[in-house]
Amino acid sequence: MPKSREIHLVARPQGMPSQDHFALVETTTPDAADGQVLVENLFMSVDPAMRPRLTSGQDLNVAMMGGALGKVVQSKHPDFAVGDLVSNRLGFREFFVSDGKGLTKLAADPDLSLTAHMHALGMTGFTAYGGLLHIGALKDGEQVFVSTAAGAVGSIAAQIAKIKGCYVVGSTGAADKAAWLKDDVGLDAVINYKETPIRQALEDATPKGIDVYFDNVGGDHLEAALRRMNTLGRVPVCGFISGYNSGHSAVSNLSNIIYSRVMLRGFVGTDFMHLYGDFQRDMSSWLKEGKVKYQETILDGIANAPSALIGLMEGRNSGKMLVRLAG
Amino acid sequence: MPKSREIHLVARPQGMPSQDHFALVETTTPDAADGQVLVENLFMSVDPAMRPRLTSGQDLNVAMMGGALGKVVQSKHPDFAVGDLVSNRLGFREFFVSDGKGLTKLAADPDLSLTAHMHALGMTGFTAYGGLLHIGALKDGEQVFVSTAAGAVGSIAAQIAKIKGCYVVGSTGAADKAAWLKDDVGLDAVINYKETPIRQALEDATPKGIDVYFDNVGGDHLEAALRRMNTLGRVPVCGFISGYNSGHSAVSNLSNIIYSRVMLRGFVGTDFMHLYGDFQRDMSSWLKEGKVKYQETILDGIANAPSALIGLMEGRNSGKMLVRLAG
Repeated sequence: MPKSREIHLVARPQGMPSQDHFALVETTTPDAADGQVLVENLFMSVDPAMRPRLTSGQDLNVAMMGGALGKVVQSKHPDFAVGDLVSNRLGFREFFVSDGKGLTKLAADPDLSLTAHMHALGMTGFTAYGGLLHIGALKDGEQVFVSTAAGAVGSIAAQIAKIKGCYVVGSTGAADKAAWLKDDVGLDAVINYKETPIRQALEDATPKGIDVYFDNVGGDHLEAALRRMNTLGRVPVCGFISGYNSGHSAVSNLSNIIYSRVMLRGFVGTDFMHLYGDFQRDMSSWLKEGKVKYQETILDGIANAPSALIGLMEGRNSGKMLVRLAG
Repeated sequence: MPKSREIHLVARPQGMPSQDHFALVETTTPDAADGQVLVENLFMSVDPAMRPRLTSGQDLNVAMMGGALGKVVQSKHPDFAVGDLVSNRLGFREFFVSDGKGLTKLAADPDLSLTAHMHALGMTGFTAYGGLLHIGALKDGEQVFVSTAAGAVGSIAAQIAKIKGCYVVGSTGAADKAAWLKDDVGLDAVINYKETPIRQALEDATPKGIDVYFDNVGGDHLEAALRRMNTLGRVPVCGFISGYNSGHSAVSNLSNIIYSRVMLRGFVGTDFMHLYGDFQRDMSSWLKEGKVKYQETILDGIANAPSALIGLMEGRNSGKMLVRLAG
């Protein structure tokens, strides 16, 4: 009966979330009964898509939901052994019991870091891979723009486009991230939208227009991109972070899509699960060959989970935002 | 050397076009030289997409461009005989000479009216057909919303959806058009957006959501539809008339497309020319069987061409807006 701590949402934020919207609650987790496992979470993931769930979707006054990687510490379930690593959606808590539903055993690649399985080699990377190649139908050598290009999803999307021989422009809002994208990742052009207005900067950076815009931002970034889209261009819409906290991010020039016959398509990673095997094979090779780089920001201890989520909204992460819960 | 009259654009409108932006100019057309034909236009087409061209695309102080149906009155060209009907892009003038490029001979179906070949059985109808079935990937029995459903394109799209067994909601801005859609066309629900705010009316009219929204309006109609789109819904974007004259028609809830994984795609009829044979076969049957109805508003004489264009922008047409130039 381990003591466990968990994070509850106790009030719904209007605009930016703050510490007042969350509470750290101590509880006791039962031991595993027959047919159950007891899991200790090692790491939990913090993602931009969590923000809209704070407004609707996430219940109040219960442990929050979110991606996590845990380890089985007790097992009375035939399919799981003590020590098994299990991906789960029960983040924001240290321990939980489960009948096995919703747990996915992870065979971690010993040549890669454990946390990479939570982003570049997990759903984060898969979202970038399928969004760019399947939804965006990227062709080798095309003109590509990626917003929040230093973020967990954006940085993978931008690097896959580079691997495919594309001209790649990335946007970010911080000088150190811009330097990483330019110097370490090797993008063709990098826009710091806090230094140069996105509209003018994107015009300057895309002399041949844009064939695929991988959109994590919406709002002014999408407007700027719609001015530059080439005929039959595609916009996989992965996120709309411009609107998550402000609640609005209007786009005024959507009619541009008619004459250039542009497609916009919202998607989530589960839309193309049939590609997961291809993704794992490609991405593990790219990571081992150093063709895909990543950054992580890891905060320690569940008490810091609200800070991680707030920091993500404020852009204080570099790459994937994680919280180490144990180990 | 027939005298010909033509319409010039003489000033670019800000907002609604008015008579002051156009001039009627008398000219003399040369006779057909070797390798040429002289064409007399019988009817010309007036389309919503002409409005953005007034702002950019249409040159000033020359005869305007637009779809027309003419008759060869002199021929020194081996491929054309006097009396041949020819579709052309040289509307807004009574006569012109041509070397044959850009002319398409029309084999008019004697069982259908000549003007039907300029809308239901022409590019107008084809835009509706391909936009709905190809871009919108309509499946039998789906939930469909069509804006400007009494318009030339919208009315065909709405009726094709009915033929495919769909539940079809149409919007229009006039009581007589609403009555035609409900009583003659037989749509399942009709919204008069000047009587009831589109957002509430659409919510009430689409209890099972929307699978395909055929968009001719953008702006508030698109916002209202995005609130109702079902998972994996499609929005073929054919027009954005809300913004043509105001110059803006912002959409504030585009992030809705992520969770429902909705696709928006701008298109023009030439995107799916490989379907033109299928379209002609299907549409001529539907017209003859009375399964597709249409309305026309025909003004007389080229001097009325500006009034036709302005009237279209003000919604004073019922169905296809044409100008009879001769015959």
